[in-house]
Amino acid sequence: MRLSHPTLKKLLILAVALWPVMVSAAHPNLVITANDIEVMRSAIKDEGRFYDAYKQRQHTIDAVIATDPAVPVPKDGGGGYTHEQHKKNYQAMYTAAIMYQLNQQQKYADFVRNMLLDYAELYPTLDVHPKRKENSQNPGKLFWQSLNEAMWLVYTIQAYDLIHDALDAEQRQKIEQQLLRPVAIFLSEGQPSTFNKVHNHGTWATAGVGMTGYVLDEPEWVEKALYGLDKSGKGGFIRQLDELFSPQGYYTEGPYYQRFALLPFVTFARAVDHNEPGRELFEHRDSVLLKAIDTTIQLSYNGLFYPINDAIKSKGIDTIELVHGVAAAYAQTNDPAYLDIAKRQNRIVLTGDGVRVSNAIEKGLVTPYPFKSVAFGDGRDGDQGALVIMREKQDAEQALLFKAASQGLGHGHFDKLTWQFYDKGQEIVSDYGAARFLNVEAKFGGRYLPENESYAKQTVSHNTVVIDQTSHFNGDVDTGNKQWPTLTLFEKNQFGTVSRGTIDTAYPDVTLTRTLALVNLPGLSRTIAVDVFFVDAAKKHQIDLPLHYQGQFISADFTYEPNTASLAPLGKRAGYQHLWLTASATPEPGIAKVTWLNENGRFYTLSNLIDEQETLLFAQTGANDPQFNLRNEKSLIRRRENSQQHTFVSVLEPHGEYNPGDEYTINADSDLTTLDYSVDGALTLVQVGIAGHDYLIAIATESLSFPHSFRYHSHDFELQSRFAVYPLNNHQE
Amino acid sequence: MRLSHPTLKKLLILAVALWPVMVSAAHPNLVITANDIEVMRSAIKDEGRFYDAYKQRQHTIDAVIATDPAVPVPKDGGGGYTHEQHKKNYQAMYTAAIMYQLNQQQKYADFVRNMLLDYAELYPTLDVHPKRKENSQNPGKLFWQSLNEAMWLVYTIQAYDLIHDALDAEQRQKIEQQLLRPVAIFLSEGQPSTFNKVHNHGTWATAGVGMTGYVLDEPEWVEKALYGLDKSGKGGFIRQLDELFSPQGYYTEGPYYQRFALLPFVTFARAVDHNEPGRELFEHRDSVLLKAIDTTIQLSYNGLFYPINDAIKSKGIDTIELVHGVAAAYAQTNDPAYLDIAKRQNRIVLTGDGVRVSNAIEKGLVTPYPFKSVAFGDGRDGDQGALVIMREKQDAEQALLFKAASQGLGHGHFDKLTWQFYDKGQEIVSDYGAARFLNVEAKFGGRYLPENESYAKQTVSHNTVVIDQTSHFNGDVDTGNKQWPTLTLFEKNQFGTVSRGTIDTAYPDVTLTRTLALVNLPGLSRTIAVDVFFVDAAKKHQIDLPLHYQGQFISADFTYEPNTASLAPLGKRAGYQHLWLTASATPEPGIAKVTWLNENGRFYTLSNLIDEQETLLFAQTGANDPQFNLRNEKSLIRRRENSQQHTFVSVLEPHGEYNPGDEYTINADSDLTTLDYSVDGALTLVQVGIAGHDYLIAIATESLSFPHSFRYHSHDFELQSRFAVYPLNNHQE
Repeated sequence: MRLSHPTLKKLLILAVALWPVMVSAAHPNLVITANDIEVMRSAIKDEGRFYDAYKQRQHTIDAVIATDPAVPVPKDGGGGYTHEQHKKNYQAMYTAAIMYQLNQQQKYADFVRNMLLDYAELYPTLDVHPKRKENSQNPGKLFWQSLNEAMWLVYTIQAYDLIHDALDAEQRQKIEQQLLRPVAIFLSEGQPSTFNKVHNHGTWATAGVGMTGYVLDEPEWVEKALYGLDKSGKGGFIRQLDELFSPQGYYTEGPYYQRFALLPFVTFARAVDHNEPGRELFEHRDSVLLKAIDTTIQLSYNGLFYPINDAIKSKGIDTIELVHGVAAAYAQTNDPAYLDIAKRQNRIVLTGDGVRVSNAIEKGLVTPYPFKSVAFGDGRDGDQGALVIMREKQDAEQALLFKAASQGLGHGHFDKLTWQFYDKGQEIVSDYGAARFLNVEAKFGGRYLPENESYAKQTVSHNTVVIDQTSHFNGDVDTGNKQWPTLTLFEKNQFGTVSRGTIDTAYPDVTLTRTLALVNLPGLSRTIAVDVFFVDAAKKHQIDLPLHYQGQFISADFTYEPNTASLAPLGKRAGYQHLWLTASATPEPGIAKVTWLNENGRFYTLSNLIDEQETLLFAQTGANDPQFNLRNEKSLIRRRENSQQHTFVSVLEPHGEYNPGDEYTINADSDLTTLDYSVDGALTLVQVGIAGHDYLIAIATESLSFPHSFRYHSHDFELQSRFAVYPLNNHQE
Repeated sequence: MRLSHPTLKKLLILAVALWPVMVSAAHPNLVITANDIEVMRSAIKDEGRFYDAYKQRQHTIDAVIATDPAVPVPKDGGGGYTHEQHKKNYQAMYTAAIMYQLNQQQKYADFVRNMLLDYAELYPTLDVHPKRKENSQNPGKLFWQSLNEAMWLVYTIQAYDLIHDALDAEQRQKIEQQLLRPVAIFLSEGQPSTFNKVHNHGTWATAGVGMTGYVLDEPEWVEKALYGLDKSGKGGFIRQLDELFSPQGYYTEGPYYQRFALLPFVTFARAVDHNEPGRELFEHRDSVLLKAIDTTIQLSYNGLFYPINDAIKSKGIDTIELVHGVAAAYAQTNDPAYLDIAKRQNRIVLTGDGVRVSNAIEKGLVTPYPFKSVAFGDGRDGDQGALVIMREKQDAEQALLFKAASQGLGHGHFDKLTWQFYDKGQEIVSDYGAARFLNVEAKFGGRYLPENESYAKQTVSHNTVVIDQTSHFNGDVDTGNKQWPTLTLFEKNQFGTVSRGTIDTAYPDVTLTRTLALVNLPGLSRTIAVDVFFVDAAKKHQIDLPLHYQGQFISADFTYEPNTASLAPLGKRAGYQHLWLTASATPEPGIAKVTWLNENGRFYTLSNLIDEQETLLFAQTGANDPQFNLRNEKSLIRRRENSQQHTFVSVLEPHGEYNPGDEYTINADSDLTTLDYSVDGALTLVQVGIAGHDYLIAIATESLSFPHSFRYHSHDFELQSRFAVYPLNNHQE
């Protein structure tokens, strides 16, 4: 049948008349779908984790609603009143909107509606924020930076979607025309450099704008969010997925920023999945988004993220971004190991995914999450160095982080080949993290402190070699971004894990090569860390190897000169100006031990193989810190003056227990008695005598054909892979 | 009937023949009785707390037995191998003996028997310990000091009592003659000065010897234990009960030593109760022993004891001594509030009392333990000053400790009228505690460090006034022991708690008078601490008021001169030599604020009312500490030079929240806007403006007749008791 024009026209009129109804039927349909709502409503009928989360959130939001929160004219920077109020507001709208869908009480919809209408009145009156940075490319209007504005939109558009059907046409019109459209346009066309940027700021912007496109039926916005303003794919969400993660799902800025970046990725990907499942964002690039969620979990120890680069140390797996991430990962994969993480997070999100996680935990489906030793290749193709994590749990949960990764952009630190060590729940060999008091106005407006540049980013604040008191890449981030170490070894087996990295661009004429191993000692049920750091230069330099430790100094087995009557800074620049020199020593050649006691009640001894030219310096942060911005932490610096080649060999040995509560102390002294180091062709050989046992640790620094035979002290050994530990006593019997 | 001599003789022979059997029937009968054994055996038939404790201890003791522990020839001091081994051995014998009674497995009796026989071989060969202190009055043989030997006996005699019936006569003979008798005689007749000493060392000795008297049927030893070697009552356990505790059950050395002293008191008293209930030791002196247990609990915050005097900070209510104490207190009183503490201890002792506690908790009988604001009178009669605890919980658990107590013997600190403040689980205004790494050989043999004398005991390491950089009583403990402050006010009501103490003997010509209040602010649901410290001297002095705070310095609202390029010690003696001067300031007269951030995530601002002659010094411990024995902590010192009279007024205000995990910071700035201080006759008046509210805090420093009328700023007020808070805004309306 062929329709006459008038009929067609009538049908079109009918269709247009029906259009709002059809759209209406599709709300909500971002992270939470109409189907989810049914599941969620059903879930709160019975007691359980989801019900508890619901009641707790309801309690919170009721308290917020009771205060009748303001929508103030933007005035303050981060941490200030208006900044925090607008942050609270978008969270309140989001929570109230979910409440409305869950229990259908009108007051929640009214709360969101009224606040949206207030914003719709306010927004058209605003210019860019008075507290924006000078010459900023990305000011906000509600906030000093558009990053917060994008976050506001990510939450607010979901709130709007959830109460959409509770609004009348006039209200929708006003909210969309005066608020949501202007915000989306401001964050896209209004700030092309941010919107198109392959960076987490860009991810928040594209996620917010893209979701607004679905809700306001602007498919063009979705296209722009996915492929950049010019839809070329040079910018946009897909490009971000392609560029920002390595093939294993590692994000070059490190886990602190990775978890932050995750939320808009996961949120928008779920929304796209629900609206246009054919786009298969979760499957994109061999499921890189799921890998990114998983990698974020792997990059944690005892619930906290490894604090590499500009990281604030208290962030961990219970961060709300990763709670959403884990819920999404479980929904996508049904992998019960994610339930283990969800249990540890002890937070359930009020979404359909939250119900699925909650139900699965209650059904007892949890299996232990497998934390692994793994080398995460860095960079888009995973070939720009690697972040290496080694894990053991012989007598307590241990981890060794080896940062043979690339610079990590503007938040990266100049810490090529640094390491960190964790044991029994605590940092032992530590990284300062970021120098920042987030949102504390009195501390430099809550932004990164000046000491973040002058100390926390500098090489000496890390546990890696500094040449001539100058940071890697001379502290230049652009240079740093172009260079990275090469990972030449990563091997794990029953003996533990070993890795080796090298870089010849951190300094013009110097090659740095470090081998780190987390070694199980057969027959002792103990694990030690072995560090061999080879410095090879074209001319002579001052070579420093600092180690920052957490704990109270207990003893050194050599004579040192403490500075008891006055303190002076260790140097003038590159972070050295922030270190008070508290003692110095020139130990006898041989093993020089330093022991400290961590708050976990265990002792740690660093045994250093020292030659006659090495000095040891003890330092403490705090010099040239006129506003007391730095924490006072301790370090030990091995120094060799005027050297062209040098190998620093050391062993870190956890031992004993200090238990003043139950009044006992055991094994407070190191058990290490011998430490020898030699090189035999491609083999690095470290002999360790400890607690009456002798071990030979053999590491092949190049690929060999295995089995590979070698002799050591007149005995024959056979290497089956690139890493082995031989009990020498047994061998000699 | 009259018995003929031959018959009588036969009966006597019969009686003697029966005697071992009769004694045998009475084993065990110290803390654990034969009846208890029945209860305990029954309790392990069902799952529950007691069963769990049993299985856990069995697991532990089985592991110990598997190692076949040595009974080494004594050689090492505290923390050394033989010292720790002998400590482990008595604990192992005690635990194994209980195991034997619980499950009647012969291997446990065998273990204890063999070890006792080993000791019986060793002990007769021993002279006093090689590591005893020179000229020591109280060396041990197994240990460097007899205190440990007495502890050994307290545990070992109980172990022997528990396996007594599993031994044959020859074994008993050998163990009693070669070991238990000699140890008991060594600790009594062998060391009369320690045995008769009214001191916790004496309590351990008398408890050990007295219990041995019961088990070995030597009633004379019991008499000596109770009344001293000469049985005059001048020494011995009863005298200790009379002298060592105040009528409220406060032990003058403070809670750290109180909990330590508790165990022998409680243990021996239970043993006496079971053998000779008529002695009524628990009822003695109006039940002072039960009061002592209760007071020990009151002297804790967030599970840890207030660290006054030589206290190691990690000791708390879960210490084994208090676990026994709480079990005994519950057994004696059936007060269900003790079950709350037992639950928090999360440890159940394997005794009859342990069963009673476990069963009661499982029956759900727990009621909340009432932590109170209380002034604990110090000294035998409770009139030698007082230790004052104030508590509030408006928005978080808070406590203020005011130490208007006496010196506290040799472990006492020179800290008259010092205070400490606790909030939200953490120390905020803190005390250094003891400078000691318990049993860590490398740290001065694990004993009190030299810095305990040179810093931790000195006045400047506390939060109280120092005159002319000289400690109270010029640091002389004998002088200190003879003097104490007078508590002139302690009042608690709905406005909070206030207390006032004064002492005119800490310095020859100076009277120190401090008023401290923990004040609830009506209408704000907030609590602040108010401090008014009046110094009145006959001639001019340098007057310092230090405050040691826990946290990261955030800001000061005045200009200060930081020492960024070099640090020097603040003084030469009395602890000042250990403080680096990090900054100094001469603020404008008015309010000078210092804000810090504690690890509990809350901000704290100390607002000081400053006149034109005051300077403020910022300091950090660590100077003149050649072995890095001190923790690096921060302090703020208010200094007034050349002054005869001065009143330091300050307000400590908890505020806001720093939550980098959830990325928000609220109320990081102090809300205090005005602070005024005046005296009107016997009234101390402090006006505080905070967060838009104005309050008048009125404290009557003398007894008045109430109601008492007064005028303030042209308004009339009426005081109903010695402490009130008036909202001024309301009043003026």
